[in-house]
Amino acid sequence: MNSVYVGNITITIFGESHGEAIGAVIDGLPPGLKLDLDSINKEMDRRKPGSSKLTTMRRESDQVSIVSGLFEGYTTGAPLCGLIYTEDKKSKDYSELKVKMRPGHSDYPGNVHYRGFNDYRGGGHFSGRLTAPLVFAGAVAKEYLKQEGVVIGSHLKKIYNVEDKDFGSFGSEELIRLSEMSIPVIDPEVGAKMEAVILEAKHDEDSVGGEIECMALGVRVGIGSPLFNSLESRISSLMFSVPGVKGISFGRGFGFVDLKGSEANDPYYMAGEEVKVRSNNNGGIIGGISVGAPIVFKVAMKPTPSISKKQETINLETKTNTELEITGRHDPCIAIRGVPVVEAALAIALFDAYLEDKKWN
Amino acid sequence: MNSVYVGNITITIFGESHGEAIGAVIDGLPPGLKLDLDSINKEMDRRKPGSSKLTTMRRESDQVSIVSGLFEGYTTGAPLCGLIYTEDKKSKDYSELKVKMRPGHSDYPGNVHYRGFNDYRGGGHFSGRLTAPLVFAGAVAKEYLKQEGVVIGSHLKKIYNVEDKDFGSFGSEELIRLSEMSIPVIDPEVGAKMEAVILEAKHDEDSVGGEIECMALGVRVGIGSPLFNSLESRISSLMFSVPGVKGISFGRGFGFVDLKGSEANDPYYMAGEEVKVRSNNNGGIIGGISVGAPIVFKVAMKPTPSISKKQETINLETKTNTELEITGRHDPCIAIRGVPVVEAALAIALFDAYLEDKKWN
Amino acid sequence: MNSVYVGNITITIFGESHGEAIGAVIDGLPPGLKLDLDSINKEMDRRKPGSSKLTTMRRESDQVSIVSGLFEGYTTGAPLCGLIYTEDKKSKDYSELKVKMRPGHSDYPGNVHYRGFNDYRGGGHFSGRLTAPLVFAGAVAKEYLKQEGVVIGSHLKKIYNVEDKDFGSFGSEELIRLSEMSIPVIDPEVGAKMEAVILEAKHDEDSVGGEIECMALGVRVGIGSPLFNSLESRISSLMFSVPGVKGISFGRGFGFVDLKGSEANDPYYMAGEEVKVRSNNNGGIIGGISVGAPIVFKVAMKPTPSISKKQETINLETKTNTELEITGRHDPCIAIRGVPVVEAALAIALFDAYLEDKKWN
Amino acid sequence: MNSVYVGNITITIFGESHGEAIGAVIDGLPPGLKLDLDSINKEMDRRKPGSSKLTTMRRESDQVSIVSGLFEGYTTGAPLCGLIYTEDKKSKDYSELKVKMRPGHSDYPGNVHYRGFNDYRGGGHFSGRLTAPLVFAGAVAKEYLKQEGVVIGSHLKKIYNVEDKDFGSFGSEELIRLSEMSIPVIDPEVGAKMEAVILEAKHDEDSVGGEIECMALGVRVGIGSPLFNSLESRISSLMFSVPGVKGISFGRGFGFVDLKGSEANDPYYMAGEEVKVRSNNNGGIIGGISVGAPIVFKVAMKPTPSISKKQETINLETKTNTELEITGRHDPCIAIRGVPVVEAALAIALFDAYLEDKKWN
Repeated sequence: MNSVYVGNITITIFGESHGEAIGAVIDGLPPGLKLDLDSINKEMDRRKPGSSKLTTMRRESDQVSIVSGLFEGYTTGAPLCGLIYTEDKKSKDYSELKVKMRPGHSDYPGNVHYRGFNDYRGGGHFSGRLTAPLVFAGAVAKEYLKQEGVVIGSHLKKIYNVEDKDFGSFGSEELIRLSEMSIPVIDPEVGAKMEAVILEAKHDEDSVGGEIECMALGVRVGIGSPLFNSLESRISSLMFSVPGVKGISFGRGFGFVDLKGSEANDPYYMAGEEVKVRSNNNGGIIGGISVGAPIVFKVAMKPTPSISKKQETINLETKTNTELEITGRHDPCIAIRGVPVVEAALAIALFDAYLEDKKWN
Repeated sequence: MNSVYVGNITITIFGESHGEAIGAVIDGLPPGLKLDLDSINKEMDRRKPGSSKLTTMRRESDQVSIVSGLFEGYTTGAPLCGLIYTEDKKSKDYSELKVKMRPGHSDYPGNVHYRGFNDYRGGGHFSGRLTAPLVFAGAVAKEYLKQEGVVIGSHLKKIYNVEDKDFGSFGSEELIRLSEMSIPVIDPEVGAKMEAVILEAKHDEDSVGGEIECMALGVRVGIGSPLFNSLESRISSLMFSVPGVKGISFGRGFGFVDLKGSEANDPYYMAGEEVKVRSNNNGGIIGGISVGAPIVFKVAMKPTPSISKKQETINLETKTNTELEITGRHDPCIAIRGVPVVEAALAIALFDAYLEDKKWN
Repeated sequence: MNSVYVGNITITIFGESHGEAIGAVIDGLPPGLKLDLDSINKEMDRRKPGSSKLTTMRRESDQVSIVSGLFEGYTTGAPLCGLIYTEDKKSKDYSELKVKMRPGHSDYPGNVHYRGFNDYRGGGHFSGRLTAPLVFAGAVAKEYLKQEGVVIGSHLKKIYNVEDKDFGSFGSEELIRLSEMSIPVIDPEVGAKMEAVILEAKHDEDSVGGEIECMALGVRVGIGSPLFNSLESRISSLMFSVPGVKGISFGRGFGFVDLKGSEANDPYYMAGEEVKVRSNNNGGIIGGISVGAPIVFKVAMKPTPSISKKQETINLETKTNTELEITGRHDPCIAIRGVPVVEAALAIALFDAYLEDKKWN
Repeated sequence: MNSVYVGNITITIFGESHGEAIGAVIDGLPPGLKLDLDSINKEMDRRKPGSSKLTTMRRESDQVSIVSGLFEGYTTGAPLCGLIYTEDKKSKDYSELKVKMRPGHSDYPGNVHYRGFNDYRGGGHFSGRLTAPLVFAGAVAKEYLKQEGVVIGSHLKKIYNVEDKDFGSFGSEELIRLSEMSIPVIDPEVGAKMEAVILEAKHDEDSVGGEIECMALGVRVGIGSPLFNSLESRISSLMFSVPGVKGISFGRGFGFVDLKGSEANDPYYMAGEEVKVRSNNNGGIIGGISVGAPIVFKVAMKPTPSISKKQETINLETKTNTELEITGRHDPCIAIRGVPVVEAALAIALFDAYLEDKKWN
């Protein structure tokens, strides 16, 4: 169950950074779901590399070929397989990276985990490239959620020392608008500053971290579970499947520590026939279950570990200390391309929870 | 799979706050594991209520009756079932709580999720009392990990505005010593301050939040997986199964955002034949896999939502606004009793990951 | 996942033949299912030992205590735990059975599987007694299926050399009547003959095998899946969870081998607005999916391996050949008490498949 | 979990009869398994269509392209994806088969199950063609089992009214020899008779059923589980994933019914240091666990439902009775090409059970 997500849908992700093709197979999709391929490709484009000077120069069109499970525009209910063929394979010499372990990367623990048999080229199965099939699966999940009136969006809450505003009382349209920005931010003055910080890091052969804030509007009350399948469990588990994510917090998150119960609790009130919460400190989830308010959470992504600066490391073959300068193409800030990936992971978690809920109807 | 953890072991948790018995069944346990019942009871005691003025006054001995899977002191390999009979059931009038939804509690979303059929008495299946069987399962997992040389410990990093020191270069003995403290802290002056803050909140009919920092020493390199079963995915998923947890971060966590790659990466070096990291910003996990350094993470727990202060809420039956004063027995700070629960959740995640790894031997 | 059934519901079965209690926890039950405890106890009574001279003399009332998941007569949606306390524990000397492996029993493979740590008393976790919690889970499943208009029944198709008639065009009422017979047969003359054959075997310190034919009426078309979750896969997997089952066949089963396609195919026709099949050679399942006709299958149960006759075997401790005479209480024909167990297994499989189907609504 | 096998390995199968590609992704494969691509292709060739006049005339080379999880000839431990591109797609008019339901086929129940959105061309996801990726997965499993000393083989026990001998005391070499025969039989005179019977059915625009007997040699004692994951449960569940399988029996199977316990039990004896059974009525499995004797079982496959003879059926669109003559290419006896499929299913079940067992080492 390592590269397979098993829930009410099953998502199998396969491939390596420099393999012939990577892809995802989604099983358990309800039949009759109309897939808007334009929307799906738009999601793929948001993540794809090479689209700006803020991202890696590797060029991949990342078009998905759907080879099964779709018939006359609708899902059939049988597994949907999407393939992404690799285009920009550099026939590079990997002999150095085979033995010199890149700090902050999976190279060393991956080598031990896979007993030395892992495909080390470009990080192999650990590569950020594997988030492409995740985005594909998320895009399909979004198609389902659309029908349920759920809209997902996010912004870069912080890049290094540049911070964006909060969501405030954002609506669906504003969320959708964010998805069209190359640097999705709420405060219009912040984008340029973030860009500057990233380019400076790039110039310094370095990288920077970032924080993504994500929101889902329209999730109805009652979705999720107590205990092992709490909505937060589902979401966090998927978020930490994304390379580079090192923290997640819902609603006030770590800020809850500084609160008293009387400040933290979200009071209920009746808005006509509808139950509402006056505040949303809990980020829309209480007791592991959606409360009808927006789902809001933050994710911390570490700086890209691949940097060109000289670094101290080891040679695993000779068992000696050595130094390493990573050449090649990297994102100076993975949080930028992380935005659609985080949304995809959320979409999958919510899709799964919605299907779970239907069993009881 | 809601109240069942499905991995290389399966843990089924059942029961309600005021039911006859709650319990856990653990399947997939390796046969021949000697269970130290004293150690297990010690873990139960760490979590049990009524042991100090900092916790709820409900009195439960929380002794576990093991009714299957144990024979002559050793696990048999068949499911281990531990039952905890309820002792201190107050024959209280629950008619108010049936209709008045406690803010910050699962009452309202739980009612909708379970279509109005949930056992609302004392929170039912959502009750923090359900962490008792989780601690039992964690105690069994710890017995396994002990054999593998893994030691788990934690401290209260922060209670409201009182903050403890960092772990620094803690060793196993210091970790174990923490588990014997009623307020586990590193800085000896901090415990009394935390106690004061909690008692003040209690006096004010209020509650406070807290942050727990947890560490596992001795986890060998190579445990975990990329993608959906990353070690962080496993751990976080279990942490958010604990009522009140609202955030988790590994290593530098949200602090990664303020770092450059050159600062964040943990350089490798050879310590004799052994590969080590100079720093441990990644909290012992890179690429979803243990790197051989201590596993370190922080968890944020919100203030107990049950407070005696008057709160605004709704009456779900009459669909009107109303007010609520929760009487009864509550923890003024759930983070205190959360410590052994968080450790249990970690132990389960690591146990599972160790078994996963064995399949490839 | 050994003693845990993981599907759209999760069933955890625990206990040993001579343990304090055995039981089952069912998770994922829809909330609001009214449980008719009389019906459930009736199912338990059908399986319980000591009720006639055809069954073992062990006396167990096999009453189920439901300790969680039920509130005011309805399922809550949280896990339902049913406990069955052991009453008739003989404080017998098991030292012989610890080392002498009973032929046809799990003793030897179980010992190796569990690395010598299994509870060997009375077969431990392998005991037929573990079918009691299975029947409990099945009885709950039947409560759900009742609402969906599904009725399950079965008869003893054959005991040793005595054969019963076929179901023919049985209806619900006739099926229900079968469940009230101690020897459920269609041909009224056959029951006495079966009894005679069983008592003769008992007198000879021997045992006999039997074949059970089972039917589910009212299963609507479209339930099941192709491939790994075919309805036959689900059903057969559960049937082979029942100790002693060694074969299963659907519809014409092995008789299909002697047929031509033109004889085997079940032609469709319109009965008013409804699609029907002229014959039901496929036993109600085609392509892994229910076709709207009765589900019909047969199960072969081997003769009880516990016989008092002297048998050749080994002493596992001394690694020598030896002989064994099993004293104690056994069923001379497990197929008799197997009937409600087989029905329970079917009910669970169908219940699961119905929930699966709901996800797509 | 419909088209995904979830165990200690996960196998995801996707594709439709006339889709661009079909395939399988296997996750959880131990790293460092050397894959003999010749052996794998040999298995594919055994199943592939168009190789003799006894099989369908559809021509597919069924070569597998492995696009991930294999590096320098060894499995990496990451998911192994094998793609099989479709070559012989007839651009046929499917409008008749869209509305006329083929008797004995999944057309009608599949249509209802998938709410009318299934790809009906050539049976879509229900097609026997989907057994190609299953054979691929089984071939990989066989590579693992080879290392463990396990050899799998089978013969056609019966085709229509022509019956083969029993395995008797077959050894590995004889088993392997069977796999090289186009009509694998033990009695050399039987093959020609079977061929005659099949060709006669073909000439009559009809088809015949068949029984396959399968054996695994070298499975060590202790593999499997009691209850839900009994070795028979695992195996049978996979067998009924194969289109056309309608019955399975282990060892004496339905013949157990005619036996007494004293005849059915397999006595143990010591053969030097080794425990052996004098007979193997139980087909190598007792209590759900391997006993160290050959695993032996039989599988009944129904006659191919696709026949050219005129058949009575319905038009699902007009809701009227009608007649159908299926033109096109079919196997007159699917049991022939079913042999390698049954072996693949067994290999997967055993592979899974072996990995399960390793967790406890």
